[in-house]
Parts: sequence; structure tokens; C-alpha cells
Amino acid sequence: MVVYFDNAATTRPFDEVVESLKEFLLQNYGNPSSLHRLGVSAEKVLKEARHRIAQKVGATPDEIYFTSGGTEANNLALIGVAFANKKRGNKIISSPVEHPSVSSTLDYLKSCGFEIGFLKVDQNGNIDFEELENEVDTGTILVSVMLVNNETGHIFDVKKIAQVVKRKNPNVLVHTDAVQAFMKEKIDVRDLNVDLMSLSGHKIHALKGIGALYIKKGVNIQPIIFGGEQQNKIRPGTENMPGIFSIYKAMEVYEKLQNEQPDKLRMIKQRFIDGLQDFDDVFINSPLDVTSDAILNVSFLGIKSEVLLHTLEGYGVFASSGSACSSRGRTYNRVLYSMKKSMEIAQSSIRFSFSYLNTPEEVDYVLEVLKKSLKFLQEIKRKG
Amino acid sequence: MVVYFDNAATTRPFDEVVESLKEFLLQNYGNPSSLHRLGVSAEKVLKEARHRIAQKVGATPDEIYFTSGGTEANNLALIGVAFANKKRGNKIISSPVEHPSVSSTLDYLKSCGFEIGFLKVDQNGNIDFEELENEVDTGTILVSVMLVNNETGHIFDVKKIAQVVKRKNPNVLVHTDAVQAFMKEKIDVRDLNVDLMSLSGHKIHALKGIGALYIKKGVNIQPIIFGGEQQNKIRPGTENMPGIFSIYKAMEVYEKLQNEQPDKLRMIKQRFIDGLQDFDDVFINSPLDVTSDAILNVSFLGIKSEVLLHTLEGYGVFASSGSACSSRGRTYNRVLYSMKKSMEIAQSSIRFSFSYLNTPEEVDYVLEVLKKSLKFLQEIKRKG
Repeated sequence: MVVYFDNAATTRPFDEVVESLKEFLLQNYGNPSSLHRLGVSAEKVLKEARHRIAQKVGATPDEIYFTSGGTEANNLALIGVAFANKKRGNKIISSPVEHPSVSSTLDYLKSCGFEIGFLKVDQNGNIDFEELENEVDTGTILVSVMLVNNETGHIFDVKKIAQVVKRKNPNVLVHTDAVQAFMKEKIDVRDLNVDLMSLSGHKIHALKGIGALYIKKGVNIQPIIFGGEQQNKIRPGTENMPGIFSIYKAMEVYEKLQNEQPDKLRMIKQRFIDGLQDFDDVFINSPLDVTSDAILNVSFLGIKSEVLLHTLEGYGVFASSGSACSSRGRTYNRVLYSMKKSMEIAQSSIRFSFSYLNTPEEVDYVLEVLKKSLKFLQEIKRKG
Repeated sequence: MVVYFDNAATTRPFDEVVESLKEFLLQNYGNPSSLHRLGVSAEKVLKEARHRIAQKVGATPDEIYFTSGGTEANNLALIGVAFANKKRGNKIISSPVEHPSVSSTLDYLKSCGFEIGFLKVDQNGNIDFEELENEVDTGTILVSVMLVNNETGHIFDVKKIAQVVKRKNPNVLVHTDAVQAFMKEKIDVRDLNVDLMSLSGHKIHALKGIGALYIKKGVNIQPIIFGGEQQNKIRPGTENMPGIFSIYKAMEVYEKLQNEQPDKLRMIKQRFIDGLQDFDDVFINSPLDVTSDAILNVSFLGIKSEVLLHTLEGYGVFASSGSACSSRGRTYNRVLYSMKKSMEIAQSSIRFSFSYLNTPEEVDYVLEVLKKSLKFLQEIKRKG
């Protein structure tokens, strides 16, 4: 049996996406900037995709800009807003548990002279709203906090964050990285009151290489890539039509599956958690109350993540020790460590991440394999 | 009959690319950053694609960086080099006939304080090497001139440009936008002596949304997008694997077709030119001696480009009045105008651009349609 529980790293494209992509590529290969029929027909797909995303998150189509992925969307949001609003101030506030595409971009902005304030997070991954309020000052231009943490699944109260921030200084823009939340959590950008929000295609069974940034109308932002007239010059370049089509189609399939079985991810995760009750020395790192149904982060104390992952892989089970974006060269989990988890927990954590393509039977198989593997590894350790 | 002669705007993906993509997407959906088998298998494809491109252009695989397209590749080259080498100087030299992804990026760099020197081009699109030599000074950090012009097909003597530049100041880096040249012209980056070169997938029957930048080992460059550890941190973000696979596959098919019929594009273009001998008031804008076989730019004097294009489209013939990247809102051809062509020529130019999927029969059909359309339009004008 092969079980792919690494869906927070990337997902397998839906069969329907792959199937329909073929026809799309052969029929609809025009450049949306071309003035002839083939261009117009490509532009129609572009508009429909923008419309579908906008509708899903409570935005308008002209507020949706396609990028090459979540990483570029986060970069455009942070760099684009920082430089366009330099005259208003130079402080940016964020959390210490952001994805590298946010944290590395903040490092870059720091090197450009911006002041970056990092909020603390507690053991559950929550920020302190009083600290946030104190941090926001008249020179603050942007606050960026993710919607769902990619390592633990923790859901940030972005609505309250925006509330606190804007009450203190209504000029501050709020960005949220919603890459792990899109299609999984209910999102309404007007209700959240965020000004920018990043999305990605390959986490929802669309293709890799496509993402989007919601930019609220009126937000002052400058491009990070320059070129032709595409996308209001905010993100020029011939649009990635296969990617854009794939998001459109994947959203359609995703919604169908959600309508058929709204609680599937929750059931899968709960079945996993229930099964873990039998295990000794297990610590669940994902805060259980406000966590994505798609992510379960568990530490098997005393067993290093890489060792257990390798053993699981022998049984055809794929998971991760942390964000695939930061997996190489790191021997403990940065995010868990920021949450003041012990080094033992941070070194032994495994992220299981689920999708609509997973089944309850797969959970049972993984639990069984885990039991065997842990027994085997603990014995080896004892024999030392 | 439908004839697509707008291949410089974008190409139809090869059937073989579309066919094999399906299997790739369903089998090889891992994230190349993942440490498990699915990740390793994706990384293998990534490496093979890098290897194939490197081999084709005389580079080494670690000198090839994937981007979201030609636009991003040009941006990374120009912005990345400009800021990384700011201490050495602040002058950049380019031509007035570059693609918007170069010219708009230079506008941006100018707004950041860099000095941009534009060389003049003559009626044939050639630069003056004496002017180039005079422009290069001790404060020059970068020269960027395209390999094949996207509007006229004119081929720049980039080898001589690099020679002149580096003789005057060996520290100057040379970049070339080879988007319209890749696979069509023989390219050897060592022989050309360029330090950076931009490529695109969707001009060679691969997918839209993928490009590459050759960066010579040792070149001082900084990223324009920040994130994880991917691609030596020069271009982070989960790699666009479908796009990368599609370039790999498209190159394979392209080479096969070239081996079978090395002169196909030249024959098609020549047949077109021969057919035009019968026409009155025709002016061929593409310099015939040093031009890409894939592009033929023609002005039909007295008839506005848009009007003729629209009439051609009625017969199923697709062409362009200029680069698709700058087609909207512009009523004359910027590039031709830079080449000191008359306004009449710049307003009546049509770009026919060919691919291996075109046939001689299509040329005959288009010539026939052109004859009919021009007669019709001239009559209307006379009656006007």
C-alpha cells in the first residue's frame, strides 16, 4: 500500500484536472495578450479563473493577481507593499512561525532598511494581542501573519489580528499567507479585513507553478517583476495558462468533493488521533482546538524524525519532518522550537498532512505501520 | 483552414508534450524538496531538464535556473545583477528594441538610481560597435542586448558585442535575452561569452509559465524572490515541475524534428518571401541577411495592421501586429519606429512567425488570402 500523507508539501493533481488539461492545452493555446480569437479565448479562461477564486474568498475578480506560486505571492505582497509605502513608515510586523517565503523576504527587507518586529508565540502557536497592539505604531506599514501554519496546522485568528492592528492604526495593511488554508478553511477577505492574501495551486491538487495574490482595491503596491501590460502591470509576463486553468478546475473538483463529504478531512484526522491513544511517548504538537483538519503534527519522543520517516517510507508511507521548503539541512523543526517546544519534541516531530484523496483505510494502515516501526526502532535503540 | 502564424507570441504545445505530461503529473507529483522517494524522483526530472538545457547551450547544469518565464528570467538577470554589483558602478547599457520585460525593468532600475544608456540601432536593427565601445566605461556593470528581436527576427551579433564590451572593461557582465533564439539558433554561451541568458518554454512548444536563466558560475547576482533553499536560493519556491518537464520533452521533440528537416523554417519563410514578389506596396521589415527563420515582418503600405489582421482572422489566419506583450493600446510598432522606419511602415506592419507545426501549404493559403484581403481593403479605401 502506498499512502501519501505529505499533502501540505504538495498534492497529487486531481485526475479531472489532468484529464481536462490535455484538451485545454491542445485547443486553447493562445496568448491571452494576442488580439485574435485564440488570444480572446485564452483570456476568457483567465477571467473565469479569476472570477472563481474571487467568489471563493469574497473578493472581486480584479483583486486577484496570478503569480508563479505562493512564494512569489508572498514576495509580491511584502516587497511590493514595503517599497510602495516607504514614505509612510518602515516597520513591518510578523510572526516567528511564518513560511520561509515570508521569513526570508522579511530578512531581505531588513537588509534594505526596514524594521521587522517579530511577535512571540506561545506553546499553542498563538500570538499575544496585547503585544501586537503595543508593536503597531505610527511608522508601521504592514502586518503579515499566516492563516494556517504549514507545520502544525494551527489557525491564527487573522480577523482579530486585523481588528487590533487597524484599531491602533487604520493605515496599516494586513497580509495573510493563506496557502495552507485555501479551500480548506472558509475565507472571506472582507470579513477578515485583510488587504492582501496569498494562495497556491499545488496544495489543492492543481499544478505546481501557479499561485495568486489577492490585493484589495486601492492598496498601494508596486510590482517586483516588470514587463508588458499584463495584469495591470502588477504582475507582467505571459500568464501561466495551464496553471491557471488547473486552479480553476481543481477548485471545481474540490468543491464537489466537499459537498459530497464535508467532514472527510476532519474524520481522517480524528481517526488518526484516536488511533494514537494506544501509543506511548507520543506528543501531539498540533493544537487540537484551532487547527486545520488537513495537518497533524506529532512527536514520537526519543525517535529522530528522519529515522522514523525513513522507516515509514519502507512501508510506502510518505510524510514529512517539516515544511518541504525548509527540509534540507535542518535537523530540528524551527516552527516547533519557536513555539517553545522542547528540543526533544522539535527533533522527533512528524507532519502527517491529509487530502481528499486519502481514505480511512490508509489511516489504519499507517497506524499499524507506525506501531511496528516504533517497536523496531525502540528495540534497536535499547540494544544501542 | 486555420493557420497559426503567431508562434513568436506563443506556440501550441507539441502533442508529445501534452501526451507525456499526463503520465508525468499522475506518477511524478512529489515536491523535489521532499526527502522521500517521491521527492527524489521529482528532483531527478529537475536535474535531467537542467542537464538537457545546459548541454544545448554549452553551459553546465548548475548554471541553469528555472524561472516562471522569459519575463522573470530577464528581471532576475537585470535587477539581480544591478543590485548585487551596485558597489562596482551604476551604468547599464541596452538597445532600444528590447522586449518590454527588459525595457520596463530598465525603467525601474533607472527609478532606483541606475544610469541606463540606450544604443542607437540603424534601419537594419544593427547597433554601432563604436558607439557601444564609447558607452562602456569604468562604472558600467551590465550590457543587455537580445539575441533575436521578437518583432523583426533580426539577429544581433552578441558575440561581437561581448567582445567589444569586455575588451573595454572586462568586469562588465553581458546578458542576452535569447527567448526567440532558443532552439532556433545555434547557441553556445562560452563562444558568445555571455554571463547571463534568458530562455522561455512556451516559445518552443512547451507550457506557458516556465523559463530559465543561464547564470555563468561566479557571476555576482542576488535573488529577486526570497524563500526556501531551492535553486541555491537564487530562485526559491516549489519548482514548476509540469513546466520543467514540458521544456525537457519539447526540446526532445524539437531536436527530432530539426534532425528530420533541418531547413524547414527557412523553406517556409523563403516560400512566403517568394510569394510576396507578386504584391504591390509591400515592404519587408525583417533584415534578410541576419534574421531568424522563424519571423517575417512585413508592412503592407497604406493598410493599417489591425484592419488587415482582422480581415486575415476571418479566413482563419492568425498573425500579430507586434509583440503580444505590448499589443494592447499601441497603434504603431515601437521597435520598427526605433529602427527609423517611417510611421507608415510602423503602422502597417504584420509579423508572421513560423514553427515546425506549420506547412508550405499553409504559406500558399495565407498568400492567397492576403491577396484577396488586400484587394478588398484597397477597394474600400478607394471608395472610402
